[in-house]
Amino acid sequence: MNPSNLLIVGTMAIDALETPFGKEESVFGGSASYAAYAASFFCAPRIVSIVGHDFPDEYRKILEDKGIDLSHVEVREGKTFRWRGRYGADLNVAETLETQINVLRDLHPHWNGKNTPENLFLANVDPEVQLELLNQLERPRMKLVAADTMNFWIQGRRPALEKVLARIDLLVLNDGEARLLTGETSLVRAARKIQEKGPAMVVIKKGEHGVMLFYGQQFFVVPAYPLEDVFDPTGAGDTFGGALIGYLAKQQDYTFESLCRAVTYGSIIASFTVERFGLERLTTLTLPEIEDRLKRFIQICRMPL
Amino acid sequence: MNPSNLLIVGTMAIDALETPFGKEESVFGGSASYAAYAASFFCAPRIVSIVGHDFPDEYRKILEDKGIDLSHVEVREGKTFRWRGRYGADLNVAETLETQINVLRDLHPHWNGKNTPENLFLANVDPEVQLELLNQLERPRMKLVAADTMNFWIQGRRPALEKVLARIDLLVLNDGEARLLTGETSLVRAARKIQEKGPAMVVIKKGEHGVMLFYGQQFFVVPAYPLEDVFDPTGAGDTFGGALIGYLAKQQDYTFESLCRAVTYGSIIASFTVERFGLERLTTLTLPEIEDRLKRFIQICRMPL
Repeated sequence: MNPSNLLIVGTMAIDALETPFGKEESVFGGSASYAAYAASFFCAPRIVSIVGHDFPDEYRKILEDKGIDLSHVEVREGKTFRWRGRYGADLNVAETLETQINVLRDLHPHWNGKNTPENLFLANVDPEVQLELLNQLERPRMKLVAADTMNFWIQGRRPALEKVLARIDLLVLNDGEARLLTGETSLVRAARKIQEKGPAMVVIKKGEHGVMLFYGQQFFVVPAYPLEDVFDPTGAGDTFGGALIGYLAKQQDYTFESLCRAVTYGSIIASFTVERFGLERLTTLTLPEIEDRLKRFIQICRMPL
Repeated sequence: MNPSNLLIVGTMAIDALETPFGKEESVFGGSASYAAYAASFFCAPRIVSIVGHDFPDEYRKILEDKGIDLSHVEVREGKTFRWRGRYGADLNVAETLETQINVLRDLHPHWNGKNTPENLFLANVDPEVQLELLNQLERPRMKLVAADTMNFWIQGRRPALEKVLARIDLLVLNDGEARLLTGETSLVRAARKIQEKGPAMVVIKKGEHGVMLFYGQQFFVVPAYPLEDVFDPTGAGDTFGGALIGYLAKQQDYTFESLCRAVTYGSIIASFTVERFGLERLTTLTLPEIEDRLKRFIQICRMPL
């Protein structure tokens, strides 16, 4: 695996989580952590991020053991970014109880690597940071630039976000975010409006309801893998995005068919993430387990027509 | 087509509707009307219901022209059941502005037909009425008994509803209703709990997010057909249920595979209903249009794996 094939910028965090099924004070989280871990089932991504001096060695080891390159993760005096969230009976909605930005406010990516990566995933982080990294890379040498975002940036960083949109190939976002970004109720119309802003590929995540992929004029819809129990939804979207981009980076095939496969792998891997707190389930996940669930998934979605 | 092959009990109504796209004072509605119209693409259903003297001949003609048998629809002094509803930007949620029960309070089905039908659809109506009809039929001679219900009955008619559940093969309900009925957040768990109450087959409708079918231990999930515009969601669920049962009544095949096909046809036909007010779109719908959309649907759901 080519270690510089996929670059991921995003957050590395220490989360405090409450779900109806339990409470944890310190859970390894962050958009880049989930995305890179998920991508690592397919390739060896490199993370651009920042952590504080309190960032536990054991968290670092979790990523390094999967071959994830942390040489571009800055360690800085101060505390790591922390997010405290709670989920009620409706696990689709996270309530943010507290956000401590901490060292994250100093995240200014420096791409001092010699090679521009072929694939870039701008995971969920301030669009100003996404732009800063984009500005340092040689766009013509890149095959795929993908980004994720969230409500907070759509509302508070619209101009920077619009600039990001104009420069990416693929946007991953959830249904509420797609509606907020475009003012359209219909997700089909929302996707078309987003495509007009730049990305030819738009992937709308609907949590327990599955995913819609829009690629030029083509589209693909897939339900979520039905789970008896969702334990902690944190990181499901980041996992999905990371697995999707990781799959594409490995295949180096950016056709519609390949995207459909990538979206399906993303769904399956995300369905494992939510079975435990944080990254816990992913750290024991194996490729045969992924393939088994994929087979089962194909079976339950097969239309006998 | 055997005219007594499918019996549908439910409401026939005059609706007043407001959606973000328009307002109509008198729209032909009711659970039995939508369900029977949808079923009529596959067989010739018979309706058991009640209307007032104000029920328009043109509404009657809409159903009769499709071969629907209205000989068991009682016409009574008084006004037809009326429902006034509104949809906001979130078309998944109907707000009831007014319900005029009118003659519907006198709906006491009399099954004076000689033949017990092979297929019965207890469309959305008071479970006491569903039970009353069930009590007049010879269960062992029936192949499929299906029912639909709603929040209002789950909250206000629980004992009668539980009796209905114990005597049916298939329950159709939406995701919110499944959660309300069982207290389970997970739809997989909710379906299992409903199966324990009686029906071997449980179909959970998720509106724009598709459908989940549980049949014994087997299951099938399918997204909704993605529409650019949803004009009026009224009757989509009744259409879905009616088309599903109509398809099964025609095929006389109650295997899991046949159910999967029935669910898919139900989704497709419901996707037309929401394109116009009330039954309007269905009245111009043709079988070739249904087959065309089905083909397109299969294409956009096909997993290239």
